[in-house]
Parts: sequence; C-alpha cells; structure tokens
Amino acid sequence: MIGKRTNRLGTTLAIALFGCVSALAHADSVRTAIESANSQMAAAVAKGDAAAVAAMYAADARVMPAGSEPVQGADAILKFWQAAISGVAGLSLKTIDVFSQGSTATEVGQYELRDKSGKALDHGKYIVVWRNEGGKWKLLRDMFSTNVAPAAK
Amino acid sequence: MIGKRTNRLGTTLAIALFGCVSALAHADSVRTAIESANSQMAAAVAKGDAAAVAAMYAADARVMPAGSEPVQGADAILKFWQAAISGVAGLSLKTIDVFSQGSTATEVGQYELRDKSGKALDHGKYIVVWRNEGGKWKLLRDMFSTNVAPAAK
Repeated sequence: MIGKRTNRLGTTLAIALFGCVSALAHADSVRTAIESANSQMAAAVAKGDAAAVAAMYAADARVMPAGSEPVQGADAILKFWQAAISGVAGLSLKTIDVFSQGSTATEVGQYELRDKSGKALDHGKYIVVWRNEGGKWKLLRDMFSTNVAPAAK
Repeated sequence: MIGKRTNRLGTTLAIALFGCVSALAHADSVRTAIESANSQMAAAVAKGDAAAVAAMYAADARVMPAGSEPVQGADAILKFWQAAISGVAGLSLKTIDVFSQGSTATEVGQYELRDKSGKALDHGKYIVVWRNEGGKWKLLRDMFSTNVAPAAK
C-alpha cells in the first residue's frame, strides 16, 4: 500500500517535473512559434484573407478592440476581421515580450498597418494571450490599440 | 565524478520541481493576491491618490493607453494617473481570467469608472501582466480600453 502510494507520488512528481523542465527548455521555442504564427497572420492580411486570420483564434477567444465590447465567437471574430482589414494591404507585428506559462503564453508587441502603396495607416501596441492546442498556438485573448492620438489622425 | 554529476542533476531537478509544484499550488493564491492589489488600487483612486496608484507599478512598467505611445518611467506613469483620475471618484476592477506563470501572471478583466454621484463615466476591459517582486505583485504591463464607441460618448 505504501509502495503503491510512493509509486503514485513518484509518477505524479515525474509528470509535474517533466512538464516544468519542458516548459523551461521551450521558452525560446514558444517565442519562435509565436513569431511564426504572427508571420502567418501577416501573410493572411496581405492576401485580404480574413477567414485565415479568424481561423487562428481559439473557439473561446475574445478580441478586445478599443471602443467596442469584446468580440466573441467564430462568426463575430470573422466579421470583425473582414471589416478591420478592408483597405489594409500590409500588417507588421513585432514581438517585444513573451511571458511563457506552459500551455499559455502572453505576448506584448507592436503593430503597423500599411496600405497598397506601403504608406503607414496606423501603428500601435498589443497584448495577446496565446494557448497551445495540440501543438498549435491559437490566439485566446487579443487586445490592441492605436498609438495615434485622435486629433492627430 | 559521476556521483557529483548525479547530485548536481538531482539538486537542479529538485529545485525545478519545487518551483513548479509551488507554482501549481499557488495559482489560486496568485488570483487572490491580484484581486487584493486591485482593491488597493481602487481605494487609492477613491482617495484621488495618483502617487499610491503609480507606486503599484514596477520600475520598468509600461502603461499602454489607446491613442498614446506606451507610457514608461515612474514620473510619466505618475503624470498619466494624475490626469486619468481627475474627476473620477470610483474605480471597480473585476478579474475574469488569470494565467499564472511563476513570477509573472496575466490578468484579463473589466473596469468601471464612476463620478462622485456614483454615475458610470466609462467602462472597458484590460489586460495586466503582473510580476512578483519579493512577494509583492507589481503591474509590469497595463493595457486597457473603453468599450464605449466614440459616437456613443
């Protein structure tokens, strides 16, 4: 009985340890995976493919734009992106911080939107909470806002 | 030599394990600590004490308001809060999600600002990345935006 308990405890600790050491070892790879997902999003925006952008969000994701209640649900997120990328030909995303927490990670970054001629339409900052779903990082919470003051627009 | 290496590996693993099991065990207490810090911030706002609000931020914190470049540095963050809470008599903060990752944690929540008569001035959402500094949780990244559309204001 004691042996069984010890074994169970050992197994539990081994699983926890494996998970944690893996998490430490993969902090860099999380950043790389997020940057890769951002490249994928930028490519989708460049093609005007709102559906491809929306597909990068988790089923229970929330997009949190300024001047709007949070946007939830696959249909609403798709509609949001269809409107948001209208007239946009280029999106740049620059990762600044990644706070990795196992199956989720929080990214802080900067964005820039450009039109067809390459002219900057807007620039701002964002915080994204990502969740790893079976090896694929999905956007779970996505908040962003322009750095440009209303009067300067 | 092998014995020493095994010992060192054992110590490293034990430290990692301790840190990780502690992290799991304290996920609830992180949420409680964040909610307690939020109550402290609400109390400071109710007193019009911008200095007390600003003191809750890490030295390398960034406040990320809509329509502005990120605000950095203790002086700039103090000035931001002095302006932001002018005319505000009440702040409510409601924690929705906490993604905990050891020494940092990401909180997603809702805020409401009220005037002296209790009338709602604004409501919106926020994401805060918190960092534990010697047992005290400080705001490291703070992003928020109104849910109210410009036309409705």
